[in-house]
Amino acid sequence: MNPTACILVIGNEILSGRTQDANIQFLARRLGELGIALREVRVIPDVRETIVSNIVELRARFDHLLTTGGIGPTHDDITSPCVAEAFGVPWEIHPGSFAKLEAYMTASGGAGSFNAARQRMATLPRGATPINNPVSVAPGFSIGNVHVMAGVPRIMRAMFDVLAPRLAGGKPVVSASWHADGLLEGAIAEGLESIQHRFPMLDVGSYPYERPDRRGVSLVSKGSDADAVSAAASAIHDLIATLGFIPVQGEPAA
Amino acid sequence: MNPTACILVIGNEILSGRTQDANIQFLARRLGELGIALREVRVIPDVRETIVSNIVELRARFDHLLTTGGIGPTHDDITSPCVAEAFGVPWEIHPGSFAKLEAYMTASGGAGSFNAARQRMATLPRGATPINNPVSVAPGFSIGNVHVMAGVPRIMRAMFDVLAPRLAGGKPVVSASWHADGLLEGAIAEGLESIQHRFPMLDVGSYPYERPDRRGVSLVSKGSDADAVSAAASAIHDLIATLGFIPVQGEPAA
Repeated sequence: MNPTACILVIGNEILSGRTQDANIQFLARRLGELGIALREVRVIPDVRETIVSNIVELRARFDHLLTTGGIGPTHDDITSPCVAEAFGVPWEIHPGSFAKLEAYMTASGGAGSFNAARQRMATLPRGATPINNPVSVAPGFSIGNVHVMAGVPRIMRAMFDVLAPRLAGGKPVVSASWHADGLLEGAIAEGLESIQHRFPMLDVGSYPYERPDRRGVSLVSKGSDADAVSAAASAIHDLIATLGFIPVQGEPAA
Repeated sequence: MNPTACILVIGNEILSGRTQDANIQFLARRLGELGIALREVRVIPDVRETIVSNIVELRARFDHLLTTGGIGPTHDDITSPCVAEAFGVPWEIHPGSFAKLEAYMTASGGAGSFNAARQRMATLPRGATPINNPVSVAPGFSIGNVHVMAGVPRIMRAMFDVLAPRLAGGKPVVSASWHADGLLEGAIAEGLESIQHRFPMLDVGSYPYERPDRRGVSLVSKGSDADAVSAAASAIHDLIATLGFIPVQGEPAA
């Protein structure tokens, strides 16, 4: 069995609708490539008790818990001390990160320079391993099976590139898709269900699409058994053709 | 206190990274306008026990539970029977929805017409009130404080337009923003925290932005007390100016 993961998105800005999430899909895909099964995503506000209780619960239920958001320098950035609280360890200056950030801030100058707010970004739970990032220098970190990253997509991605080689993964998930214009889910449901029954180790899914000039359904087989994925895709192809539609490989163009 | 809400996104396609979520931000904004505080979002897979246990837990914790996804005609569309199970009621043909869907399918003809798979879409938990939608006719529904909608964004939005007037709301949430090119979060953190302390009933947030030609920070005050939102925004304006940057009203252009 592949290891499991949960993503905890920490930030009022997603819950208020101010910000469109741009991290979940990226992480979902990258985790799949690593053979890590993303089983749940939660979005929660910047509230101490909520963050702490979710970390305690979710790190016990999943092999990896990835968090995004709440590690900047402002008053609502409280993820890091909450992780310390969830692990019952002190939250303290991390000397290596402090030195790096101080050098970077001093070199770049700017208003206030390496002030108290910025020094918070070099304060980590005791025992944490920094996840360095070349974009903004302020680190994410791993402690136990919890991996704490920034919310800003460009910085989160840089951190994930550093983190990925350290994550215990499994068999990569692969997928194959066929789609057909004019096809309706209601017409293909019965045949698709029997394909799912033949390949219980896969996820067989159907996804309607709409374009200005056409609509149809995309059918996907997905799993870590590549041979089964191919065989199921071939059965999907034949099902579409049997119903009198033209199967086209892959996902429909945007 | 405004009523609270949770969104439960049901679908493997979000967790696999196949599909970018396009419903959370829409619902978050619309709920805010209705004075309903979105407190949590969860994304879970199309797995019966997971769906049932989340519905049981979340409908007890929040005033409104909105679900998206899993109400189509295919084998992985299991949200509706899971809601019936969570409520301990039978899952049975809803005669009014059945008649509507039958008339629509018969009129539109097409492969298989009103077959068993499509009839499932007119099968609801006993006691549910349909949420009709003009796009695809197959209904969503409300039962107790649980509101079940489609995952396809165009259909979900049509359903929410029908649902919204029935939801018990509160005082609408309003917000005001100022932004400044060149500003950094680390420079404004201390001043912003003191504004948050002066207005504890609001959410005062800071959000870095990056454009090809410039970067800066956007500062937002948000809450259901419109006078406090204005006063906090004015304090934010003055803070930006005091630090030597030019405050510009609203969010930065994309």
